[in-house]
Amino acid sequence: MRIIRDVSEMQAFGQAHRGVRVGFVPTMGYLHRGHTSLMALTRPRCDQLVVSIYVNPLQFAPTDDLTRYPRDLDGDAEKCAAVGVDVLFIPEGFYPATFRTQVVVSGVTSRWEGAERPGHFEGVTTVVSRLFGVVQPTVACFGEKDYQQLTVLRSMTRDLALPIEVLSGPLVRDTDGLALSSRNVYLTATQRERARSLHRALFAVRDAPAAWNLGQRTAAGRALVDSDRLDYLAIVDADSLEPLPDDAPVTAPARVIVTARYGGVRLLDNVAVAPTPAL
Amino acid sequence: MRIIRDVSEMQAFGQAHRGVRVGFVPTMGYLHRGHTSLMALTRPRCDQLVVSIYVNPLQFAPTDDLTRYPRDLDGDAEKCAAVGVDVLFIPEGFYPATFRTQVVVSGVTSRWEGAERPGHFEGVTTVVSRLFGVVQPTVACFGEKDYQQLTVLRSMTRDLALPIEVLSGPLVRDTDGLALSSRNVYLTATQRERARSLHRALFAVRDAPAAWNLGQRTAAGRALVDSDRLDYLAIVDADSLEPLPDDAPVTAPARVIVTARYGGVRLLDNVAVAPTPAL
Repeated sequence: MRIIRDVSEMQAFGQAHRGVRVGFVPTMGYLHRGHTSLMALTRPRCDQLVVSIYVNPLQFAPTDDLTRYPRDLDGDAEKCAAVGVDVLFIPEGFYPATFRTQVVVSGVTSRWEGAERPGHFEGVTTVVSRLFGVVQPTVACFGEKDYQQLTVLRSMTRDLALPIEVLSGPLVRDTDGLALSSRNVYLTATQRERARSLHRALFAVRDAPAAWNLGQRTAAGRALVDSDRLDYLAIVDADSLEPLPDDAPVTAPARVIVTARYGGVRLLDNVAVAPTPAL
Repeated sequence: MRIIRDVSEMQAFGQAHRGVRVGFVPTMGYLHRGHTSLMALTRPRCDQLVVSIYVNPLQFAPTDDLTRYPRDLDGDAEKCAAVGVDVLFIPEGFYPATFRTQVVVSGVTSRWEGAERPGHFEGVTTVVSRLFGVVQPTVACFGEKDYQQLTVLRSMTRDLALPIEVLSGPLVRDTDGLALSSRNVYLTATQRERARSLHRALFAVRDAPAAWNLGQRTAAGRALVDSDRLDYLAIVDADSLEPLPDDAPVTAPARVIVTARYGGVRLLDNVAVAPTPAL
């Protein structure tokens, strides 16, 4: 496995491989089975598999956890090598000093994480745009764990007509049901135990009796979350991320999304909900 | 010459030609020798030459001249064929109904046309991003006539690490010295005669005695412009477009830029100024 730190060198690699299928999994490192599952999903769909590790300052607010975001480059490199990654891109000096461009997706960014973290998605779409330019992938893979991010990046790719297939990989849970996240390392044992209420609440919403309307489902779900602060739990349209009306059944693919805080740690989780069968 | 109107068909062409050099000249049509000079410049540097004609609504304000922008598709097609264009792309339904992405360059967009036409450059960078995605050129060519636009698009391409070489072609003047522009057709004979003061003013600034400082040069230039309204005449750094200090000599490549109005028609012109030789 080749490790590239120089942006120009990575660009040259992208240019030299225009004729073949280049797969790409961008990450912020501290890799877990959620990340490696995306690599394994992409591996058979490309000739060259590139993984990036870059903790992008643009997507963190000053009050966010940028400086204490967990890092383990040696462990990450081992995991990438084990899953057959060809190039590990760990950029140094990723943004040029004169960098002044932003890629902004509106609509699907306005609610949920977009409302809780102003500027976050602009940071994500901007860094991914530049990573796409440098790596020039034919296929890129993102996790469904960050469901809104996936939706935003799909919108961006479609709107800018990028010649890139966007794949997604399912959320991966730990043995106790908690969604895998690099930030889980910061939870105390007690917080972790309480955080198991998140997936239980999501599953309860998903598996509620078909006769319950969406208002009843979300109320039940919210009541089940044990957290220091519940930022949101909502049933949303799977494409637009607009909340579905409380008094209606689910008629199109939907997603239950939840974000809650445990001390300084925000945890996200989500699950798909199939449309309610007509009675 | 092939004419493509369908966005997906153009995208398929771009994908099918990933292995060869694709040249691209985006235009808003009503082509003149300024446009065809860009095509001629790009022709020997590519295997397939694509020209687009699209009057992009995103870069016009409600008060701008979108609906009366001049059109002549038959004449345009003849001119493209004569200069060896392979594909003329005249998109229909260019933006998807769900389109919600903007590409925004700050800094170099804040002054001059950016200040006079709020939202204009966001429209330009967004349409060019999507055109780049659809056409997938290896080389793209823009005119120095729209000097700030060229600078903005160079910034965007560099910031997003797009694998595209940006070429520029010199401004082309009519026999009477007026910079060629599709909008010249709207000038009355009297306005056109008065508009010749624009290039005369620019040349006077450029050719002023070496002992004159920049304040003296711009004052002299402004006094020479005969227009209904002079939006700006300034000597700016050729890269940053920041105005140069009045009391200094020119020490780096600079540009004199001017925009003035004749009735409802805004005309742009510019000329390069070499650094003043040290005394």
